[in-house]
Amino acid sequence: MDERRRAQIAALVAPRSVALLGASSDSRILGGRPLAILGQHSWSGAVYPVHPTRDEIGGLRAYRSIGEVPGPVDLAVFLVPPPVVPELLDQCGAAGVTTSYIITSGFGEAPEGDGRRLDTALREACTRWPAMGVAGPNGEGVYHLSGDFALSFSPTVDYERGLTDRPVPGNIAVVAQSGGIGFGIFNQGTARGLRFSTVVSTGNEVDLEALDYVEYLLDDPATDVIALFIEGFKNPLRLRQVARRALERGTPIVVMKVGRSAQAQRTAVSHTGHLTGRADLYSALFADFGITEVRSLDELLDVAGALATTGPLPGRRVGVFTASGGAGLWVVDACAEHGLDVPELPADEQARILARLPYYASASNPVDYTAGASDEHGVTAALAGLAGSSSVDVVVLVMSLTVAAGLADRVRPLVELVAATGKPLVVASYTHPVADAVAVLADLGIPWFTSQQGLGRTLAALADRHDVVSHPERSPGALPAGAPDDPGHRSGPEHVVPEHTVKGWLRTAGLPVPDGQLVQTEDEAVAAGAALGYPVVVKLQSAEVSHKGDIGAVVVDLAGPDEVAAAFRQVVAAAPDRPVDGVLVERMAVRGREMMIGVIGDPDLGPFVVVGTGGADAELVADTQILTAPATVEAARAAIDRLRSARGLTGWRGQPPADVAALAELVSKISGWVVELDDAVVELDLNPVILHDEGRGVDIVDGLAVVRSPAGAST
Amino acid sequence: MDERRRAQIAALVAPRSVALLGASSDSRILGGRPLAILGQHSWSGAVYPVHPTRDEIGGLRAYRSIGEVPGPVDLAVFLVPPPVVPELLDQCGAAGVTTSYIITSGFGEAPEGDGRRLDTALREACTRWPAMGVAGPNGEGVYHLSGDFALSFSPTVDYERGLTDRPVPGNIAVVAQSGGIGFGIFNQGTARGLRFSTVVSTGNEVDLEALDYVEYLLDDPATDVIALFIEGFKNPLRLRQVARRALERGTPIVVMKVGRSAQAQRTAVSHTGHLTGRADLYSALFADFGITEVRSLDELLDVAGALATTGPLPGRRVGVFTASGGAGLWVVDACAEHGLDVPELPADEQARILARLPYYASASNPVDYTAGASDEHGVTAALAGLAGSSSVDVVVLVMSLTVAAGLADRVRPLVELVAATGKPLVVASYTHPVADAVAVLADLGIPWFTSQQGLGRTLAALADRHDVVSHPERSPGALPAGAPDDPGHRSGPEHVVPEHTVKGWLRTAGLPVPDGQLVQTEDEAVAAGAALGYPVVVKLQSAEVSHKGDIGAVVVDLAGPDEVAAAFRQVVAAAPDRPVDGVLVERMAVRGREMMIGVIGDPDLGPFVVVGTGGADAELVADTQILTAPATVEAARAAIDRLRSARGLTGWRGQPPADVAALAELVSKISGWVVELDDAVVELDLNPVILHDEGRGVDIVDGLAVVRSPAGAST
Repeated sequence: MDERRRAQIAALVAPRSVALLGASSDSRILGGRPLAILGQHSWSGAVYPVHPTRDEIGGLRAYRSIGEVPGPVDLAVFLVPPPVVPELLDQCGAAGVTTSYIITSGFGEAPEGDGRRLDTALREACTRWPAMGVAGPNGEGVYHLSGDFALSFSPTVDYERGLTDRPVPGNIAVVAQSGGIGFGIFNQGTARGLRFSTVVSTGNEVDLEALDYVEYLLDDPATDVIALFIEGFKNPLRLRQVARRALERGTPIVVMKVGRSAQAQRTAVSHTGHLTGRADLYSALFADFGITEVRSLDELLDVAGALATTGPLPGRRVGVFTASGGAGLWVVDACAEHGLDVPELPADEQARILARLPYYASASNPVDYTAGASDEHGVTAALAGLAGSSSVDVVVLVMSLTVAAGLADRVRPLVELVAATGKPLVVASYTHPVADAVAVLADLGIPWFTSQQGLGRTLAALADRHDVVSHPERSPGALPAGAPDDPGHRSGPEHVVPEHTVKGWLRTAGLPVPDGQLVQTEDEAVAAGAALGYPVVVKLQSAEVSHKGDIGAVVVDLAGPDEVAAAFRQVVAAAPDRPVDGVLVERMAVRGREMMIGVIGDPDLGPFVVVGTGGADAELVADTQILTAPATVEAARAAIDRLRSARGLTGWRGQPPADVAALAELVSKISGWVVELDDAVVELDLNPVILHDEGRGVDIVDGLAVVRSPAGAST
Repeated sequence: MDERRRAQIAALVAPRSVALLGASSDSRILGGRPLAILGQHSWSGAVYPVHPTRDEIGGLRAYRSIGEVPGPVDLAVFLVPPPVVPELLDQCGAAGVTTSYIITSGFGEAPEGDGRRLDTALREACTRWPAMGVAGPNGEGVYHLSGDFALSFSPTVDYERGLTDRPVPGNIAVVAQSGGIGFGIFNQGTARGLRFSTVVSTGNEVDLEALDYVEYLLDDPATDVIALFIEGFKNPLRLRQVARRALERGTPIVVMKVGRSAQAQRTAVSHTGHLTGRADLYSALFADFGITEVRSLDELLDVAGALATTGPLPGRRVGVFTASGGAGLWVVDACAEHGLDVPELPADEQARILARLPYYASASNPVDYTAGASDEHGVTAALAGLAGSSSVDVVVLVMSLTVAAGLADRVRPLVELVAATGKPLVVASYTHPVADAVAVLADLGIPWFTSQQGLGRTLAALADRHDVVSHPERSPGALPAGAPDDPGHRSGPEHVVPEHTVKGWLRTAGLPVPDGQLVQTEDEAVAAGAALGYPVVVKLQSAEVSHKGDIGAVVVDLAGPDEVAAAFRQVVAAAPDRPVDGVLVERMAVRGREMMIGVIGDPDLGPFVVVGTGGADAELVADTQILTAPATVEAARAAIDRLRSARGLTGWRGQPPADVAALAELVSKISGWVVELDDAVVELDLNPVILHDEGRGVDIVDGLAVVRSPAGAST
């Protein structure tokens, strides 16, 4: 990343000196907490309170302005009322401050009040000082754990309020647009035994943005996992680059992207001013780059905690070890529900496992050593047998964490035993883990779960992550060098392109469309039919008719000239009031499975390709997969395999298998073709695409496009 | 319920005297814990240790046998080795013990070892003492909170291990086949602020079974909610009766039914010996009777806790009140994902709410009063405005529960304010709630959530519960009086019934099937075609051909005698090696939407009816709803509305709406017809059922049945 950006964020996360503008001695009010909290922690840099009238604040010498501060200031923190922020920012810029962090609210998140005006003034001030980084406004601060630097008013980092013991620094970083959530993740995570490196609240991101922090943290040796809470990105296209970099570096990102629902989108903009974007496209992008998307804070902690300790999971076969049959069954159900397997162990392995267990134990998997097992060595040997089985990739140890006394001594040998097999171990507790038990497991690096669903979901997420990491051939291709990242140039007028034009483009691009001719008269239609060879299909062509079939503007299976002539008259009469380009006479495609391929050219997130079940009811069936474009053939193939109806394509009920390879190739080609057209295509809807039996390929039978600009896109 | 059963369970839950067979003074071993734990609690009944050689155990006088115990014994608890259990049970029976509770394991859950033999011996002993209740074996005990009676070895009720403060008795009862889970629910629930009345571990249920305890608890004035952890029921058909009784009494049940997956079913039987049954049928039954089914322990606690405090939710419109915009948005997304609405408030209400909040607050819903709001009365007024809005049914208060100091004083006025509107209030915390905060909210009766998904899921479950309670017209009908509950009589041989026979039955029952004739020769086929009127369809009839269409044994749209004759020859040739009943010539049904109606006659759970998308790909599309039979027309209508493709039936893309009313009536009729046939029908598959446009009805075009016995079921 840009070295200036790196230095600006370093100055925010680990400054040598901090100036507090608007600091207050009154530690009861919000503006007084950051200074008080700063002093509670062991960070020992220089602190300069700045106040227009006071000489001393919180026992420290105060300065009348930032210009009067004697030493260099790495970080200036703003706790002043919103109207004076722009002016003070100018003073910080003039004083050579490296980074300003604005806690003050009341800017872009308040479009109805004075916020918009103040936001503009703030942004203008930022542009006057390009060398200075500006974080916030509306931020809740930062906490850097190894440096014990806490600059925030959050009770979660306040030893006088919500913080008790000094948290153990760890390898999970949190970047959150909502400060409450960012510090909430830290707080709930710490209670669960997770260990953090850095917490940053990015606020409205008037200058420094979430992806800047992510890029910085990708190079942070203390950080192995990044947890991201996001409403929207300032420059969504940049997400592709940062996601690719994270994937290449092997740093997992866990993301919670809010504003998924229409109801949330209505109000998101009024919070931090971020536009939330299309949730389905974000989800596709995250999945394609191996970013784990979660929907809830507990899920976020589950996945981040497990990635920070066990890492990705190279298989989906789970071995369950339990003394409670019911608790074991529950884990099995939850694993199965998330696509994991709990395979039965081979008979010889079962016999070895059972050797020293009570006669009422069982070993088919779950291995239920029973509450009555008193031979400790027998239990250990049973676990060794399960962990050592070539049938399992991960071991779930079901236990109660009610009693912490002696837990470390009991569990450490089991952990070491499983570690020796190279397989990860996780704990499922059916009781509430006491704090000491949480600490023991954290020290051992063992993730634990009280939610069976949370366990199953997390193991599946770890396996999904491994799938992406181990299949680089499925990663989305890069957008062309110099791909525009200025949303402005994509705001041209949009217009609909009818089928015959779309097919012309596709034919030029070498893609499989039936032979056809656009005609204007009945005679031309008859001649075209004869030239093409029967059977043919006749279709009205109009940019204003999107569902031709619904209004009788398509007639299929025409076997001779009279039928063609009649069909011509029918389709022309079907939409008498709409402007038409003509009538398309086309060779009838051989029947087959109806699929669809689509393209979405999102103004913010860029191009995506869609594949799914087609036909007239495609919208109703809603069985589609979205892929980041350009998509490789391998990625397309995997997406087709994920369709709900996928088993219908591989020889279902005695039918021959479909030519899925050809479909995957077409999806990939179309995604590449759209990328080459830059951002011209807003929407492309090829439906149906006839998928024939294996070896017989695909035919694009109908299509429609919406484009932003005709430039470079004419037939 | 049966008075004897009631007395037996009362003797288990709240005995006046307890004998402990096999009690040990060594409180370090499992057999020694129950006596130690019993003494830790304040229950003050008589305790009689029984031991063949000791005179004193744990400071109490011990008796050589149950017969020597001086007073009457309400409850005898077995801690002895499995082989002596049957003999001692005889002694308890002879001594007039009301109820025996067997903690000992090693019976039916251990079919591979001595378990099966001991299980048989135990069951035989039970039958010798019909007046005595027997609970377990393989049980973990019971905890009755208002009586402070704890009879268990679970560390969760052990003040020397996992129990700290005396739990506050409450209104949630737990019945669990797995003792570890039952006490785990209690333990995790208590940590979350839930309050319990009774915890019972039912074990293998050699005599007393889960539904006995449920029936008992339905009449327990201390219990308002029952949490049930189940692998399988001894007599699943009885579940219908108990579920109906619970619905009528208004007592919600929250159930976790494990053994859903094939992988779990493989091992379930080896745990407590329960057969797990078909998960989809259980789910249908639970839903139809308003029993909330959960998949995870956290979900169980979420729902049970909310039902125990706020109760069912009479609407799905959520008002969100927050100082953190991001946390509010997250709640909105989670609510939307679970089918709840977070409606925008009317402009005048927004203006009133904003009156005393900072200019950067927002009130569209979420009401974001912002962290900067310093006017406490303004915040209170804003909450009053939201809670009082006629646009919301429930209020979610988003807050941090990190700091307990002053929480009660801050929250109580808000709770009272919302309570005055008659609407429930729940809390969403984005931080980890400290124990004191949990206690404050428990005292106030306010459920809280740290998982946004948990919040959304729970509110939806409360609204679902209200839907069932408030729509008695959708409740499943009762099975005929004297419906058999002996699985034995349903084990007769099964055989396939071909289409023409099924249609004969349906016609007799007055259901809409096309006119048709079964013929044996080409000439008869031609004559039948002429008699029926063209177009007709010709179909081979064989009990050994299930997918006729796949092998060319169906020819449709035949317009004249020659076509009928050719079709006859074709279908006869399609399955030359299979025995056939003949060929069915039928009036061709008018085309329409292809649906399916099915029946599942489960040997354990009884009859169910299925409705869904039909056609050749029905299995692939898998868009079906299962209903407990007999189902009312209203229930069928609601099920059709829940289909994934439901919007395709109500006038989608300009098509006329379908005759959903006729379909619902047919579903209801078939479900009633099947119930009248007692348990003869194993499976009925009517596919396709053609659903015509509104007012034009439905046609059953094809059908197949599997029946258990021909008696009463011939054409």
